[in-house]
Amino acid sequence: MSEKLWRKNLINIEPYVAGEQPKNDKIIKLNANENPYPPSSKVKAILEGKTIAELRKYPSADASVLRAALAERVGLKSENVFCGNGSDDVLATAFRAFFNSDKPILYPDITYSFYPVWCELLKIPYKTKSVDDDFVINIEDFKEPNGGVVIPNPNAPTSLGVGEKFIRELLENNQDSIVIIDEAYVDFGRYSCVELVKEYDNLVVTQTFSKSRSLAGMRVGMAFASAELISYMQAVKDSYNSYPLDQIAIETAVASLSDEDYFKATVEKVKATRDRTAEKMREMGFNVLDSETNFLFAQHEKLSAKEIFTYLRENGIFVRYFNKPRIDNFLRITIGTDEEMELMLEKLSEICK
Amino acid sequence: MSEKLWRKNLINIEPYVAGEQPKNDKIIKLNANENPYPPSSKVKAILEGKTIAELRKYPSADASVLRAALAERVGLKSENVFCGNGSDDVLATAFRAFFNSDKPILYPDITYSFYPVWCELLKIPYKTKSVDDDFVINIEDFKEPNGGVVIPNPNAPTSLGVGEKFIRELLENNQDSIVIIDEAYVDFGRYSCVELVKEYDNLVVTQTFSKSRSLAGMRVGMAFASAELISYMQAVKDSYNSYPLDQIAIETAVASLSDEDYFKATVEKVKATRDRTAEKMREMGFNVLDSETNFLFAQHEKLSAKEIFTYLRENGIFVRYFNKPRIDNFLRITIGTDEEMELMLEKLSEICK
Repeated sequence: MSEKLWRKNLINIEPYVAGEQPKNDKIIKLNANENPYPPSSKVKAILEGKTIAELRKYPSADASVLRAALAERVGLKSENVFCGNGSDDVLATAFRAFFNSDKPILYPDITYSFYPVWCELLKIPYKTKSVDDDFVINIEDFKEPNGGVVIPNPNAPTSLGVGEKFIRELLENNQDSIVIIDEAYVDFGRYSCVELVKEYDNLVVTQTFSKSRSLAGMRVGMAFASAELISYMQAVKDSYNSYPLDQIAIETAVASLSDEDYFKATVEKVKATRDRTAEKMREMGFNVLDSETNFLFAQHEKLSAKEIFTYLRENGIFVRYFNKPRIDNFLRITIGTDEEMELMLEKLSEICK
Repeated sequence: MSEKLWRKNLINIEPYVAGEQPKNDKIIKLNANENPYPPSSKVKAILEGKTIAELRKYPSADASVLRAALAERVGLKSENVFCGNGSDDVLATAFRAFFNSDKPILYPDITYSFYPVWCELLKIPYKTKSVDDDFVINIEDFKEPNGGVVIPNPNAPTSLGVGEKFIRELLENNQDSIVIIDEAYVDFGRYSCVELVKEYDNLVVTQTFSKSRSLAGMRVGMAFASAELISYMQAVKDSYNSYPLDQIAIETAVASLSDEDYFKATVEKVKATRDRTAEKMREMGFNVLDSETNFLFAQHEKLSAKEIFTYLRENGIFVRYFNKPRIDNFLRITIGTDEEMELMLEKLSEICK
């Protein structure tokens, strides 16, 4: 291409590459950590009962109805809740609002691959801390001066979680920075630190409707924090896009929250399938990490991850393979329905023979 | 508050303040440039027919179905179309992707109040160019070296549009920068420059479903540009939030596009009401600019804008008053239904007596 002068003004970035999204409906899709079950039937009722005339108006700029419902559920106030267009939007907003130090922010080396992407985009200095050979995060690594801390709990793609003791120790040792705990998968885990928002005014906890509530298609994420920190997130949002959540996203999310029984039942089903699948994979010679999420992170004692990935793919089963240092012999397998997992296990047993 | 050290890392910004959103349903809301008519009934059909099980999956990351429908409508290719979470998200993405020069970007002094907000947030140098006393943009002002140009056509809140000659002259004189034409209100105007995307590879045209298509509640905006520029916008999006449009936003937007007759009829109704209202206001002593939008920008020969604003408000009619230099004696009045405008005119005639 000719060197037109305007090209000098184009941004210089490396975009994040999302997981493959096969379009064939026959494929068993275990590569995006989506929930195998539909959202609550109350979501259907919302769509069917919707008066579309209302859609001509702008939605609530701060999703006030949803914030109130979330606040009530976790025992906080609306002023402690921020909602955004998926937890990616929420996390990116938090990075921009809170990570403005010359010191690097800290997060684990094996973690959600969007963190370095936001740091590049927003010009935030960062330093990664190596998890150990069993992918465990070492609390000692997060006791040095920093410009902020991000810990996903449970972590992805490792599937491992930490408990209250770890989080408290982290907070006690980071009183001069803002600490983000990314709880995208927490409903499948053992411990959410949302309660600690009442004790620590520098803690931000992010969650999502995409996994445990089967609403990835609606893009709703949230953060819980002190009123002061939430006001900064609102200010950043209002400087970028005042209405990130559309009216129907707000209403379907509220409907989902109103159906706690269905939510709990779905989460329990996924966890039961997960634990059964892990057990059977271990019998086939897999090292399967103790998952607190809706996916398994596993490597085989003899076969390479790439080999298994390719075999599954040829058989119409998509899982996630990361061609990255330290984890290039692992597979990340989303928990599907029992039926889907049986088919997957069958294919694994064929290749493991 | 005690000076905790983490406060030093908080972002320093002045948030954008959106128009007042009264919660009382009885109020006549003519302050947010929303469409008084509902979206196409095809939107209703989408919601009623929706299989909610699909919502458990992530939406298309690039809204491919919607991009294809938009491309077909304007005679371009999908690769020339970008979709985002409202045109604010689209514009902010374009600002970040394209305005990375040390030279200031240029835009009119009286214009959409979000431009300076994005410049502050994204640290983009900018220079405003004064419109004349009749709020007309002077093309000569946009012939100096710059880091980019943004012109809303029609402009807001002035309601004035420019034609093809102006846009071509602007492009011919700005071949070294990227030129954004913000066409949020274009469907109520006389000229869209979307066609020129085929001729100028440095042109970006943004539009929205919020005004002419009555879908402000769904947050859908789009940009048209050369495939090269669109690829940069996609890269910025993928570095921030891969899935800005939820599944239902995508589908309702596609449904709206499929109902061209309803779209045209609604736009014509708004324009007819607008022209009638302007005429009656002129008879009452208002200077009403020749609107090419779904709102009127007007000042009275004797009464102050603030006085009229307050009187209307006391009577349950909300219009927009900007307490800003040069326009602090003008009102921006959104075109409602004929019935709403009659009531508004009645109140105006009372205060004008």
